Amino acid sequence: MTASPVASLPLSAIAKACRQAARQLAVLPTEAKNQAIEAIAIALEAATPEILAANAADCVAAQTDGIPKPLYNRLKLDETKLKAAIDGVRDVGKLSDPVGAVPIHRELDEGLILKQVTCPVGVLGIIFEARPDALIQITTLAIKSGNGVILKGGKEAIRSCETLVRVIHQALSATAVDPAAIQLLTTREETIALLQLDEYIDLIIPRGSNSFVRFVQENTRIPVLGHADGICHVYIDQVADLQKAVDITVDAKTQYPAACCAMETLLVNSAIAPTFLPLAAAALHKRNVELRGDEATQNILNTSYSVVPATEEDWSTEYSDLILSIKVVDSLDAAIDHINTYGSQHTDAIVTEDQAVADTFLAQVDSASVFHNCSTRFADGFRYGLGAEVGISTQKMPPRGPVGLEGLVTYKYQVAGNGHIVANYVGENARPFTHRDL
Amino acid sequence: MTASPVASLPLSAIAKACRQAARQLAVLPTEAKNQAIEAIAIALEAATPEILAANAADCVAAQTDGIPKPLYNRLKLDETKLKAAIDGVRDVGKLSDPVGAVPIHRELDEGLILKQVTCPVGVLGIIFEARPDALIQITTLAIKSGNGVILKGGKEAIRSCETLVRVIHQALSATAVDPAAIQLLTTREETIALLQLDEYIDLIIPRGSNSFVRFVQENTRIPVLGHADGICHVYIDQVADLQKAVDITVDAKTQYPAACCAMETLLVNSAIAPTFLPLAAAALHKRNVELRGDEATQNILNTSYSVVPATEEDWSTEYSDLILSIKVVDSLDAAIDHINTYGSQHTDAIVTEDQAVADTFLAQVDSASVFHNCSTRFADGFRYGLGAEVGISTQKMPPRGPVGLEGLVTYKYQVAGNGHIVANYVGENARPFTHRDL
Repeated sequence: MTASPVASLPLSAIAKACRQAARQLAVLPTEAKNQAIEAIAIALEAATPEILAANAADCVAAQTDGIPKPLYNRLKLDETKLKAAIDGVRDVGKLSDPVGAVPIHRELDEGLILKQVTCPVGVLGIIFEARPDALIQITTLAIKSGNGVILKGGKEAIRSCETLVRVIHQALSATAVDPAAIQLLTTREETIALLQLDEYIDLIIPRGSNSFVRFVQENTRIPVLGHADGICHVYIDQVADLQKAVDITVDAKTQYPAACCAMETLLVNSAIAPTFLPLAAAALHKRNVELRGDEATQNILNTSYSVVPATEEDWSTEYSDLILSIKVVDSLDAAIDHINTYGSQHTDAIVTEDQAVADTFLAQVDSASVFHNCSTRFADGFRYGLGAEVGISTQKMPPRGPVGLEGLVTYKYQVAGNGHIVANYVGENARPFTHRDL
Repeated sequence: MTASPVASLPLSAIAKACRQAARQLAVLPTEAKNQAIEAIAIALEAATPEILAANAADCVAAQTDGIPKPLYNRLKLDETKLKAAIDGVRDVGKLSDPVGAVPIHRELDEGLILKQVTCPVGVLGIIFEARPDALIQITTLAIKSGNGVILKGGKEAIRSCETLVRVIHQALSATAVDPAAIQLLTTREETIALLQLDEYIDLIIPRGSNSFVRFVQENTRIPVLGHADGICHVYIDQVADLQKAVDITVDAKTQYPAACCAMETLLVNSAIAPTFLPLAAAALHKRNVELRGDEATQNILNTSYSVVPATEEDWSTEYSDLILSIKVVDSLDAAIDHINTYGSQHTDAIVTEDQAVADTFLAQVDSASVFHNCSTRFADGFRYGLGAEVGISTQKMPPRGPVGLEGLVTYKYQVAGNGHIVANYVGENARPFTHRDL
């Protein structure tokens, strides 16, 4: 079956077609998937003028509609950005195949063999705002991991998305991957309808603003890979190295303030606060960071720097901007308690020269990433060496934290016997299991 | 803080106390957890008369209330059953600790080290009907995996549960495990309120009927470990060994028909149906299995055995009883399609001597457990050698299928540096990462 890039069938029929095609994609050998990925890269290169023209038309319409500047920047695709996306396609081709690993291989009894085998999740539902390059990346990751994908782009990127999917479909039609495994929904379909397709979609990945991700999480029964908040902390312990503490504070706040792993709240032990805070404030002041502090912070800094009084709301606010809330705490326990109460279980760091204190912090802070003497900005799939970043998850159950390609696969148990029945393994004279790992 | 076995505080206060205690339990060494588990075993032995008396009182009340016989059987605790439960406690003590494993240990750059470390989920919410021995088992598994647990038993078992928790609390008070990590809710608290505590509870494990599990799944945003359905199939391929096919059919249906991995629907290739079905029907007839068949099955069997015409509803019915629906299919594809359409992604088996056919079935049937030439009844955590069975999950994302102690842990990423900041790893002259596994 050939899929039209613009969905004209009812949503359930589109999802069903995707599921059928995904079932075939799931069992393709690595080589066939890599050939399809290379075919996409070549097709995107050849169609560059067409893609840029479609994107230019989207950009003109977006300017007419007066969309916000950051959204416009994410929408805009120039030759450099497209080339980087195509390089990214080839990088995914080089990643090792996450499908077909055998974490458990065990003899249960003579001739009765258990395997736990990794396999694709099935069908991914990807909902993204603006960025057409996200479509390219996630489609390639889906193919590599053997999953079908239903893409729902924002209406501001409709011409770009339709052109990209048409090019990808044409490329796939000459490969082992059925183009129907990649489906694009346009604005005629409601996002909310997609979120209700739990019969056909196994995992939702939202890419967009915090409020958008939260909306998705609250309106679907399908598992969601993503995070709505990044309220990250750095705690400066009383035996911190001052230079490390200042460097890490500045990097975590200012290196890229819009990142989800940027610091929002600085916690400072009261014993070191009078020494550390003026140094930190001077460095942050140079970077134009607005400071909001509790009373102790105000008392220490107010003669030299202006400090806005922090309210209760500040402790649970993700500024994503050059604003920092500061609180002085009396103990490690108070710091851990603050983080576990107000944080978003994303990424939190301690600066200390005391290994025992660091160990307690790393063990008791209940976050996906916990750091000692380094910046929170390292929380990233590429920096962790995961090869790719499918998303960052702040849920407790795995996959948690930065998630690579392994987040797009699950596993099944395969058992092969020779007529084995359970009746022989129960009651009197029950055969024992051997449970021997192979 | 000492917890009363009977909850008298508001639910949120109970949950908060549990979470506080769980945070300490999470970081206890294996030896301390094992000592607590042994203390529970000793205390339960010593309190046997008291526990049996409380259970006897529950049983009298249950009979007065006229509760159904199967529920009564699960409620009733005799000395043998209690002794088996205490043996189970000691077995959990012997399992290896799922906390503190390091699946990833990687140098990101000189002096910047990443570890992925397994850690407890946090607080478990366990909701169970009747069986007081389930309380003993799950409490021990929770301690071993470093998790707090909020238990919600059925009102029919209230005296048994209160006594058990009192005994467990007394045992724990002399150990490193804070008794507050184990909380019991009684019937005064609503199950529905527990399901809304997503701020305090990280994982819900329901133990009860299918409809009860479905109710839980549909009324909480907390992840649920469990399965509402077990609609399992056996497919007899055209090149099946007839003896294996009959033996596996009988075992999968009759060895324990109430089990979730018992077969509900038998699929038979049309080429073998005329030979196989009369043999299978004879064997099933001896075990008093009621047969419901499609038209082809009726045509083959009706001269010798009575076959009730199967309706569309039969294909999606879990009988949990000596009833079997039978369908003749024309191909492997038709069998796979039937299973993926009507099954519950629990456990499905093929009987064939053709390895290529088996491989296709194992790859394309979209179930947690897929079997070749053995009975569906092997789908069980103990039989898989997982050491324990916390539950069986039919969700797609891990943990999937029979889940052992590893289903009660998650992981966090720990990164230790020496003042490392991200600014040095971006832009011109960016330091490269080494990404060297240690």
